[in-house]
Amino acid sequence: MSAGSSSGAGRRAALVGCGLIGGSVGLGLRAAGWHVTGADADRSTAERALELGCVDAVGVDPAAELTFVCVPPDAIAGAVRAALATGPGLVTDVGSVKHGVVAAVDDPRFVGGHPMAGSELDGLDGADATMFAGATWVLTPTEATDPAAFALVRDAIVGLGAEVVAVSADRHDELVAMVSHVPHLTAGTLMNLADDAATEHATLLRLAAGGFRDMTRIASGQPGIWPDICTANAPAIVGVLDRLIERLGAVRDIVAEGRRDDLLAHLTQARRARANLPARMAGRPETLAEVRIPVPDRPGVLAEVTTLLGELGVNIVDLEIAHSTEGVRGTLLVLVDAGQADLVRGALFARGYRPTTTRLS
Amino acid sequence: MSAGSSSGAGRRAALVGCGLIGGSVGLGLRAAGWHVTGADADRSTAERALELGCVDAVGVDPAAELTFVCVPPDAIAGAVRAALATGPGLVTDVGSVKHGVVAAVDDPRFVGGHPMAGSELDGLDGADATMFAGATWVLTPTEATDPAAFALVRDAIVGLGAEVVAVSADRHDELVAMVSHVPHLTAGTLMNLADDAATEHATLLRLAAGGFRDMTRIASGQPGIWPDICTANAPAIVGVLDRLIERLGAVRDIVAEGRRDDLLAHLTQARRARANLPARMAGRPETLAEVRIPVPDRPGVLAEVTTLLGELGVNIVDLEIAHSTEGVRGTLLVLVDAGQADLVRGALFARGYRPTTTRLS
Repeated sequence: MSAGSSSGAGRRAALVGCGLIGGSVGLGLRAAGWHVTGADADRSTAERALELGCVDAVGVDPAAELTFVCVPPDAIAGAVRAALATGPGLVTDVGSVKHGVVAAVDDPRFVGGHPMAGSELDGLDGADATMFAGATWVLTPTEATDPAAFALVRDAIVGLGAEVVAVSADRHDELVAMVSHVPHLTAGTLMNLADDAATEHATLLRLAAGGFRDMTRIASGQPGIWPDICTANAPAIVGVLDRLIERLGAVRDIVAEGRRDDLLAHLTQARRARANLPARMAGRPETLAEVRIPVPDRPGVLAEVTTLLGELGVNIVDLEIAHSTEGVRGTLLVLVDAGQADLVRGALFARGYRPTTTRLS
Repeated sequence: MSAGSSSGAGRRAALVGCGLIGGSVGLGLRAAGWHVTGADADRSTAERALELGCVDAVGVDPAAELTFVCVPPDAIAGAVRAALATGPGLVTDVGSVKHGVVAAVDDPRFVGGHPMAGSELDGLDGADATMFAGATWVLTPTEATDPAAFALVRDAIVGLGAEVVAVSADRHDELVAMVSHVPHLTAGTLMNLADDAATEHATLLRLAAGGFRDMTRIASGQPGIWPDICTANAPAIVGVLDRLIERLGAVRDIVAEGRRDDLLAHLTQARRARANLPARMAGRPETLAEVRIPVPDRPGVLAEVTTLLGELGVNIVDLEIAHSTEGVRGTLLVLVDAGQADLVRGALFARGYRPTTTRLS
């Protein structure tokens, strides 16, 4: 495996959009040695990014190997297409909803992405090279995605300190509806319910202790981005809201009927699940295994393998593609936690691949 | 007003129940100079409280001026009655739901209470004299409550660093259903919804970023106390859950119908309301006003005045009762923030009282 493949020394990257996320990506890339050129619809924002050291230069770089599109949701598809037209480099984005952009930009040089940290709306001045350290960064390869493109984008993101998970765009959107979009809408709803009641009973909010504060914290964020997110991900959000409403109805009945054992079971499951939430920083596994997967040189193999591992919850520690000289077959090499090697081998075997695994000491 | 009225130097208090809250009350009372005797259904817990310095002695103290009953919900009413029978002193409790206990114990020497901090179930070893510093502590006086008893209980609690709010037991139960019980049940429901989906998609919980963690944090608490709380406060909890479900349904329709302006209005209200949540530590107001309220010496006056101010969100900084020598009329003196003096005067006037206010420099 290529040690140091995430180093950017001497390589050129570009940013389109220099807000909090774009600025943080720029700082992180520069720290890894990349030369970063940045543009923003608001020229003064790009110039501020230069002042803050987020970019080396303001403008467009046709020679950029990789462009990060970090603009608000409704501008992403257009900005990605423009970046693809600017030069021969690869393009990725950081939008919160993926199926629309991924469907709109069907190009082997584009890989959709979503870092689970920060917000596209917050200001550049909070930019931080370590924003993505230990964060999960989703990539959504498709049948069209060139494996080499995926590997390069992945390496650059790993260089920012993030852990990459590959899932399909549709699956990503379902999952973030569950763990991000619906929780956000629910926090706002709880807050408004209490706020309306507080008009009548001024003392109510004085009784709001730590738990209520925790639950409504995300409601204090900028609301401006949410109409776009909810428009783009409406079907998944509505589906999860329906399930949440149904479950709250079941809890309501448990309370109304005094079913103490059911209530205890409900809260005991929640406690156990909360305790099992993966730590933000999973860290590098102690023992690694290399999985070598002979693959046909056809579209979709990369997406199938990486998203299969993503759905299994397997962290791909490193990934490389070795092409045969004839160019009709290649080998995909992935490094995984040795404890998950059998899971990976079984899943790939079941999909028709014939991987071999080697435990690395 | 009696400066230092919350000093316990040379005074005797008792604890029934030496868990996290009882132990913390004991530490705080001892720090204020009280002599504290503690009992627990589990004798070894009381002895541990002695070791930890939460109490001066293990056992029952018939001479205690004030007993704090800090036992699990279903044991409160019995323990309060037993404490009232032990001696002539006052009794208060720390249960999360108030209407049942307050109705079951109709005694002028009992004042129901609920500190909005800690949990009755957690262990004694986390006891901390500063647990209640800046926390809100609800008292629920009734028509039966002796004003002098209320003032003494209130002073002892202020001595623990808490801010006292008086509301009726029923109102308390409605309000905590809104800001504590239903948020807790909702956190558990969100966690379980995600947990069930995670069985199918192992990667889901890796996408759970800070917002989801905040929203589900309270689901990690001990579930054991919740069947009692939900049984005791079922009507209020069911009522609030019904309203939450109705509102989530409205949000669902907003998303399904793409009503962007309505969504923005929803989240903008929530953001504003979250920003206006009172800080945990309100602190003593800069300028105070003394409100003197001539009151007839009849039951219920104390409860009416204090809960009226509680519902208006007025913090009673200090409170004293001066009886006339004849014993048929008295004067209630309360100290409030000078900025709220007119609000207090207007509200009391409208209820038939004739208060005078003096701004203290």
